[in-house]
Amino acid sequence: MGRVTERRRVIRVRDGSVGARPDTLVVEEPLEIRLNGKPLAITMRTPGDDFALAAGFLVSEGVLASAAELANIVYCAGATDDGANTYNVVDVRLAPGVPVPDISLERNVYTSSSCGLCGKASLDAVRTTARWAPDASPGPAVRLTPETLGTFPDRLRAAQRVFDRTGGLHAAALFRPDGELLDVREDVGRHNAVDKVVGRALPDDRLPLSSCVLMVSGRASFELAQKAVMAGIPVLAAVSAPSSLAVDLAAETGLTLVGFLRGSSMNVYAGAHRLGLDEAAAGS
Amino acid sequence: MGRVTERRRVIRVRDGSVGARPDTLVVEEPLEIRLNGKPLAITMRTPGDDFALAAGFLVSEGVLASAAELANIVYCAGATDDGANTYNVVDVRLAPGVPVPDISLERNVYTSSSCGLCGKASLDAVRTTARWAPDASPGPAVRLTPETLGTFPDRLRAAQRVFDRTGGLHAAALFRPDGELLDVREDVGRHNAVDKVVGRALPDDRLPLSSCVLMVSGRASFELAQKAVMAGIPVLAAVSAPSSLAVDLAAETGLTLVGFLRGSSMNVYAGAHRLGLDEAAAGS
Repeated sequence: MGRVTERRRVIRVRDGSVGARPDTLVVEEPLEIRLNGKPLAITMRTPGDDFALAAGFLVSEGVLASAAELANIVYCAGATDDGANTYNVVDVRLAPGVPVPDISLERNVYTSSSCGLCGKASLDAVRTTARWAPDASPGPAVRLTPETLGTFPDRLRAAQRVFDRTGGLHAAALFRPDGELLDVREDVGRHNAVDKVVGRALPDDRLPLSSCVLMVSGRASFELAQKAVMAGIPVLAAVSAPSSLAVDLAAETGLTLVGFLRGSSMNVYAGAHRLGLDEAAAGS
Repeated sequence: MGRVTERRRVIRVRDGSVGARPDTLVVEEPLEIRLNGKPLAITMRTPGDDFALAAGFLVSEGVLASAAELANIVYCAGATDDGANTYNVVDVRLAPGVPVPDISLERNVYTSSSCGLCGKASLDAVRTTARWAPDASPGPAVRLTPETLGTFPDRLRAAQRVFDRTGGLHAAALFRPDGELLDVREDVGRHNAVDKVVGRALPDDRLPLSSCVLMVSGRASFELAQKAVMAGIPVLAAVSAPSSLAVDLAAETGLTLVGFLRGSSMNVYAGAHRLGLDEAAAGS
């Protein structure tokens, strides 16, 4: 439980010289998420923040949106023959009266649609499931400058303590538009890192995260854009490229999507108004 | 079908200058894989080589191992209300007599184990499902030099035609130990890229791929190591870090696992004998 790194012996080859030495690896272990006792999903993750991971996963799936809907989360003991607790199975209990959805075992499975499986069906599923629009909550709408946004990648990287030791995992962070770093999580799975930062906000009833920017260390896939939308986050920024479907989802839901964010350079794929770039968006 | 890239309008910010221009994005669309007509899994993938993706996925899951076990793969028409074919649903039909396994909808779900969910259960599941050991097939066992291996990352990168246009996707390639590049596939999902190169080998009955090296553009997760083992590939090399569970799986199954492969530098985590580094492995 909570083992984030492990040591292994490794043979290093460096320009023809060969030597053996210990190396630090990021830990990967399966986590089974159960909902009211029923197995729902398994993800390969880096141990730690497992309750947050489970809660954030259920926010992404549209099951949870507030602390009141959650009764508790526990590790399941007795999953092994000898009754030991592997700390790899968590059970999420919904509060009384909260409907247990009929969601599929498979992540991102929108098979209930009768229209056939396509990108549009994936977009429709998020839109109909989302509890909030990106600017739905009270308070001022998020605005930030490209200059502030440009500081986020280096600060995300600086906050990646496990990456420093292993060189091997993804990160997700929440920033305020004024630049304050609110939270950062690392995981072998980039979707898990996002679920963890979202899930950590749930017990404090900080959802929707409508005054936050989500920064991720890798690319912006549909799945990550979906997670931002489901958590009510108005801005998703990625170090690397977005996919076509991530851009389509952002455009449709009003999410600001920034890719290839590297210092003072970035590509804005949707929602440019939050960065004060409306004129550029309107111009040719 | 087969759309690998799409164009979108993007606002580019470069050191304070702002302009709008078209940008090329990698396409991401869902693919539903059915087995004998029954939905099995959905993955977000880059269209193209969908039959290979489905076949390779089923090799990874232990369902398919030879061309004779496969009857055919088709796109499912009529999945939409108007009967259109979205080319996002494929049905894999097994040959008569081939048992349809009771595999879960979820990737990497080894819930049949009664021992509780843990890394060891994941390792056990691969070991009991694998059809081949890494050196099981006839012919000379794979040996290659660190020098040859060191040329693979640049050659993989040079073969990534879609990456050049989008900057946004993973790649997997098969090399011969003498350095010949056999195949390379790109995808938004790194597991999909591996499934595609493995699946393309199935119809020609080239499995087990016991004379091949699998090179991947990113990190080496448990899932990718699992796919190498299930395809009978003896060497997995990754540009970036492996996870603890990938190293454990490699050590247990006899897979050679190389990480941080960058030119003449690399870390060898298991199976060093195939690189002629036995002495270093035996030494301190």
